[in-house]
Amino acid sequence: MLNKIYTALIHYPVLGRDGRIITTAVTNLDIHDIARSSRTYNIKKYYVVTHLPAQQDIVRRVLGYWTEGFGKTYNPSRSDALSIVELMPYIEDVLEEIERTEGQKPLIMFTSAKRRPNTVTFQQGREIILTTQKPVLLLFGTGWGMPKELENMCDYSLEPIRAQSEFNHLSVRAAVAIVLDRLIGESV
Amino acid sequence: MLNKIYTALIHYPVLGRDGRIITTAVTNLDIHDIARSSRTYNIKKYYVVTHLPAQQDIVRRVLGYWTEGFGKTYNPSRSDALSIVELMPYIEDVLEEIERTEGQKPLIMFTSAKRRPNTVTFQQGREIILTTQKPVLLLFGTGWGMPKELENMCDYSLEPIRAQSEFNHLSVRAAVAIVLDRLIGESV
Repeated sequence: MLNKIYTALIHYPVLGRDGRIITTAVTNLDIHDIARSSRTYNIKKYYVVTHLPAQQDIVRRVLGYWTEGFGKTYNPSRSDALSIVELMPYIEDVLEEIERTEGQKPLIMFTSAKRRPNTVTFQQGREIILTTQKPVLLLFGTGWGMPKELENMCDYSLEPIRAQSEFNHLSVRAAVAIVLDRLIGESV
Repeated sequence: MLNKIYTALIHYPVLGRDGRIITTAVTNLDIHDIARSSRTYNIKKYYVVTHLPAQQDIVRRVLGYWTEGFGKTYNPSRSDALSIVELMPYIEDVLEEIERTEGQKPLIMFTSAKRRPNTVTFQQGREIILTTQKPVLLLFGTGWGMPKELENMCDYSLEPIRAQSEFNHLSVRAAVAIVLDRLIGESV
């Protein structure tokens, strides 16, 4: 059910450098790049999740500029991409919103650059997405990744990209692009 | 020959919005994100190609900060990623440098978001990369893409990502990540 896939970028709760829970700052290019990738792979909504009012203001200003302000006429395709972005304070709000829209809870997929037990392969993830009748939510973390409490909320946890490489430090923007491509590819 | 793959990000000559040749500005995150993706996929060098002295200064400052300055101790894996970045004024300098290092000219692959005649599929591109004895250079454009004169220098031109989607406006950072993943994937 490719028209029911959602992405979310989590700014809280995420792990800091020392493993403690932190809130990360929103980055302009995380909004743009992940919106463009999500839109290109036919994602229904891309949720930017942050509970801090000052950070929410930044997101609103970026979206306002490109979907209503000067940016809309200057670059209509950018406006189109950003039209699928929605600001949410907490992951729980995302889940409620999807359930309200779709009439059922989404399957949630966790992503991480670290090897973990009980992951599904991208091939398995792809089959789940292509065959399920449920909506699917793909979770992406910022900072040093998402904590165990978020993983425990998820139905599936995807294997890492390039896990056997001696170096795997992709940006979240690159990771989202690759995950969407591996799960959806050229399907429309 | 996976240890002989090179990437290059071209800032001149590229197309502007109106189809004329322009020089684009270097973006900090293009340096970082594409370095991290290149390093994760075991790319030998990532060339940032710009002939403008002021733009070259920006690249040098970013690289200096992260590979010699404070950034090196603050984030060693970022320093590692940026250690494969090299600044070059023109594409011709890139070709000379690769020939000098490898003892032979590279196969050059062109990339674009637009459908063009005589493209190779990603599967074909993958087979070429995995079987050739030659070094391979993957070219990525900024702005509104690379002009015909650059395509004519190339041995192969890769098909676009998501060409049949009604919307395909990936950032160059996302496009590089997906192209590397499709060509190299989990190969080491």
